[in-house]
Amino acid sequence: MLENKERTELTSLGEFGLIKHLTEHVETYNNSTIKGIGDDAAVIKYDNEKHTLISTDMLVEGVHFDLTYVPLKHLGYKSVIVNLSDICAMNALPKQVTVSIAASNRFSVEALEELYGGMLFACKKYNIDLIGGDSTSSTSGLIISITVIGEAKKEDIVYRNGAKEKDLLCVSGDLGGAYMGLQILEREKFVFKDNPNIQPDLEGNDYILERQLKPEARVDIVELLKNIGVKPTSMIDISDGLASEIIHITTQSDLGCELYEEKIPLDPQTFDRAREFNLDPTVCVLSGGEDYELLFTVPMTDYEKIKNQPDITIIGHMTPKSSGVNLIAKAGTSHPITAQGWNSFK
Amino acid sequence: MLENKERTELTSLGEFGLIKHLTEHVETYNNSTIKGIGDDAAVIKYDNEKHTLISTDMLVEGVHFDLTYVPLKHLGYKSVIVNLSDICAMNALPKQVTVSIAASNRFSVEALEELYGGMLFACKKYNIDLIGGDSTSSTSGLIISITVIGEAKKEDIVYRNGAKEKDLLCVSGDLGGAYMGLQILEREKFVFKDNPNIQPDLEGNDYILERQLKPEARVDIVELLKNIGVKPTSMIDISDGLASEIIHITTQSDLGCELYEEKIPLDPQTFDRAREFNLDPTVCVLSGGEDYELLFTVPMTDYEKIKNQPDITIIGHMTPKSSGVNLIAKAGTSHPITAQGWNSFK
Repeated sequence: MLENKERTELTSLGEFGLIKHLTEHVETYNNSTIKGIGDDAAVIKYDNEKHTLISTDMLVEGVHFDLTYVPLKHLGYKSVIVNLSDICAMNALPKQVTVSIAASNRFSVEALEELYGGMLFACKKYNIDLIGGDSTSSTSGLIISITVIGEAKKEDIVYRNGAKEKDLLCVSGDLGGAYMGLQILEREKFVFKDNPNIQPDLEGNDYILERQLKPEARVDIVELLKNIGVKPTSMIDISDGLASEIIHITTQSDLGCELYEEKIPLDPQTFDRAREFNLDPTVCVLSGGEDYELLFTVPMTDYEKIKNQPDITIIGHMTPKSSGVNLIAKAGTSHPITAQGWNSFK
Repeated sequence: MLENKERTELTSLGEFGLIKHLTEHVETYNNSTIKGIGDDAAVIKYDNEKHTLISTDMLVEGVHFDLTYVPLKHLGYKSVIVNLSDICAMNALPKQVTVSIAASNRFSVEALEELYGGMLFACKKYNIDLIGGDSTSSTSGLIISITVIGEAKKEDIVYRNGAKEKDLLCVSGDLGGAYMGLQILEREKFVFKDNPNIQPDLEGNDYILERQLKPEARVDIVELLKNIGVKPTSMIDISDGLASEIIHITTQSDLGCELYEEKIPLDPQTFDRAREFNLDPTVCVLSGGEDYELLFTVPMTDYEKIKNQPDITIIGHMTPKSSGVNLIAKAGTSHPITAQGWNSFK
């Protein structure tokens, strides 16, 4: 898409010129942003009763993303979203981000404009202020490092370690879609490698492709929970697969868990594609990751408030540690869950 | 140094294992750190009247550092320091950092332990809490991304744009040393390349080598200024060379400046080595960078408070914009200063 456009080399702008160019149209949306880009540091100030939350993520080309099928604009959008999701996972609201990038001379100024375009689109959609960052050259590929800053009242913050026995295990949205979207993209990449004249066949996969390429941060769930008067006892976002996230909560809360396979929310497209790929949809959910849904526990006393929420599904409950962490399969059999979270070093 | 030690591959620990391993001995020193490493986000809370400052930097192997002569422990130390310096440059105090690294499989667990050892040494020295981060694999080399968080009262924060006409231009410490240290290291690298049996000749260069390899953040100057009742009207830290930093202050304050060459503080070792390398010491100061000293302006009325401070030198004064930004050479001649800050894209 970018090939037909003008190509401006990074060297023509220089380090300061590039970051100035990429951020010149940055708007701020929050009163808490006292000073954004343009000095040695950004300055923020939350209400007196608010705590500040900080999270950071690094994305490396060839490890976390593959530019043969991920458009730079989508990459920019997603790289902001995955950070916002970490703040949501604390039951808090994201407000600011800093963005640092390292890019080799393979990238043109126009390419980085696309990337920033996606980032700023996410910022605008979620009312997030881009308040700082860094840009530099890299010897190979593209590296994106984002830090997100958010706020919450002290009493609203939810950690991973607060789940209690008999709490209900809940999840937002549906799971496994991002992983199946990735399978489609990988398949079409190999088809394209064999024969560059074949156009990618993506039809009928809109939903799962969007789950992979353009995920959302569940700020709406944080707001919904507040509105219905539910404070989770523990919460985490699903970046590495349901199994890995359940293990984080059970380990840090010193509990066990029963997860009911039949309760796991799946979009029909996710289910159908998994079957076509000869994959078990449940395994895709447990090990796939990148759904960026929220996994959380609530006291049984909140059951009435939760049960009719269309975007929240109760998928299990917390048990004593001695019972272990188990999947109760559709047939009724019990299977220990082991962490199979994604490991970039393997 | 690391070659004789055991080598543990990164793959043996995995992503979570690595970050857990590297951060297991992390201590926190500040009451403002409510929750550090171990959840989706860190939580901090400053006093009600304090603002939060955020800055971020990315360091790329082969662009910002050369591991043929920079020990990993020093690299870790310096990578924290350069971030702390950005908060000092706001007349604020750094309190927390997050650290993300991407490392190729060329690096062993022991090598990254060295890197983190240096980072944690800097944190301990400056009472900084390491509150989060990310670790991932890279396809090539080592990339370090650090975000620093600091605090200041609203009325104490100093921006780059507040300098006034006739203000005195001041600098902490001495300049040009880090650049001359780099010249020594580069020279010895080339000697070593030609003949690996020759031991590097670093004798008599302790001071400038330390300026390059183990710089410090001038938290002490921020505290000194507070103690003597001086609030700068503008401030910046010297990372890219004095010329570039002066241009930042004059541009953002809409002023000109006269910088007196004879006033520039130089360590004798910096001066002598520059001469030996046939370099003009003043050019080394203007274009060299990485001294991480503070450059700031104060009203003339603060002259008495500043003049006898051994660690602060008055090097010039601010003029109307129409007068331009000029170096007044030792001979009395005036020369326009142009930004020659370091550009990683060239």
